[in-house]
Amino acid sequence: MIAAKVIDNIWATRKADSLRGLKFMLVEVLGGIDAGRLLIAADTIGAGFGERVLVCTGSSARKMLDRDDVPIDAVIVGIIDEDCAF
Amino acid sequence: MIAAKVIDNIWATRKADSLRGLKFMLVEVLGGIDAGRLLIAADTIGAGFGERVLVCTGSSARKMLDRDDVPIDAVIVGIIDEDCAF
Amino acid sequence: MIAAKVIDNIWATRKADSLRGLKFMLVEVLGGIDAGRLLIAADTIGAGFGERVLVCTGSSARKMLDRDDVPIDAVIVGIIDEDCAF
Amino acid sequence: MIAAKVIDNIWATRKADSLRGLKFMLVEVLGGIDAGRLLIAADTIGAGFGERVLVCTGSSARKMLDRDDVPIDAVIVGIIDEDCAF
Amino acid sequence: MIAAKVIDNIWATRKADSLRGLKFMLVEVLGGIDAGRLLIAADTIGAGFGERVLVCTGSSARKMLDRDDVPIDAVIVGIIDEDCAF
Repeated sequence: MIAAKVIDNIWATRKADSLRGLKFMLVEVLGGIDAGRLLIAADTIGAGFGERVLVCTGSSARKMLDRDDVPIDAVIVGIIDEDCAF
Repeated sequence: MIAAKVIDNIWATRKADSLRGLKFMLVEVLGGIDAGRLLIAADTIGAGFGERVLVCTGSSARKMLDRDDVPIDAVIVGIIDEDCAF
Repeated sequence: MIAAKVIDNIWATRKADSLRGLKFMLVEVLGGIDAGRLLIAADTIGAGFGERVLVCTGSSARKMLDRDDVPIDAVIVGIIDEDCAF
Repeated sequence: MIAAKVIDNIWATRKADSLRGLKFMLVEVLGGIDAGRLLIAADTIGAGFGERVLVCTGSSARKMLDRDDVPIDAVIVGIIDEDCAF
Repeated sequence: MIAAKVIDNIWATRKADSLRGLKFMLVEVLGGIDAGRLLIAADTIGAGFGERVLVCTGSSARKMLDRDDVPIDAVIVGIIDEDCAF
């Protein structure tokens, strides 16, 4: 997984039917040589702007949803505790 | 997913039979340290030149199609709203 | 796999239900041009801070668990021997 | 997919049995910040040196073959038309 | 696939049970902008130090083994012929 910070919402009215109802967030990778990389991750657990999150990528991202037929490759799987100092 | 901008069509007359009928677009990654990376994504939702799109990569890209036997690893899954300022 | 060094714990109280009970470690890639890349890997074999570990990424990471429905994309699969000089 | 240029053959007499009969080509990524990245892709459609090709990577590469048990992660899926100016 | 050079053995006494009996090699990516990247690949075909090998990554790496439940994401699938000049 990647540690990232939620920085914005992404709105896409025209999208795959299977993505309807999913919330998409722009996240920025934190730390290391990938710092500053941007990803768009689906969010099903209600992360807020500025929160640090765990992002899971690839085929495993689909395991966060109840269905396996959704074209997503990045999803927020956890919110890093505020007092977790890394 | 990745935010990218559609910059061109890609034409390939000689290609895998399973790719016939699919439209391929050259897209350029937007923002972050990957800005300027080029990808070729299949497009089934009719994105236009200059539009900002959500691109899904990896095995999940195949979920955008009705069949699972197509060798594609990147597909446009949504068009970012014009007034979405990120 | 990637050779990495365990540098910290990652705590995420709010997370996917399927991730409950899993331990997450911040690891830093060792050597080569990716040195300094940070990843968060699930740990089921008890790696300690400072230890060098083998990290498996992508869909294969799920093979380290008994279930295939867990959204993880990186897992510690081994601990490199202390006297392995690379 | 990635746009790449075919630059050489790769010969490997000792290889996995399931790879026998497959042709491997060294390709170089074209354009963008990944320009100059080298990959080795299986070729089943007869691309020639100097041609620009579409390369599909990851698990989707296996969809180009009739069998799913072949350890390849990159395959040429199309040849970009000569008059496609990108 | 990636062309890489075998540079060392990696020993990990404590590891996933399913990895027992597998040999792990440190390999260094050859050529292009990824030159110098280090990977650890399972080896089932007996590559020697200094040899140039084809490394398959991702889920396809598992296709090199008889079982699909092994957490590996990189495997040596061939040895590049000594007289293959690339």
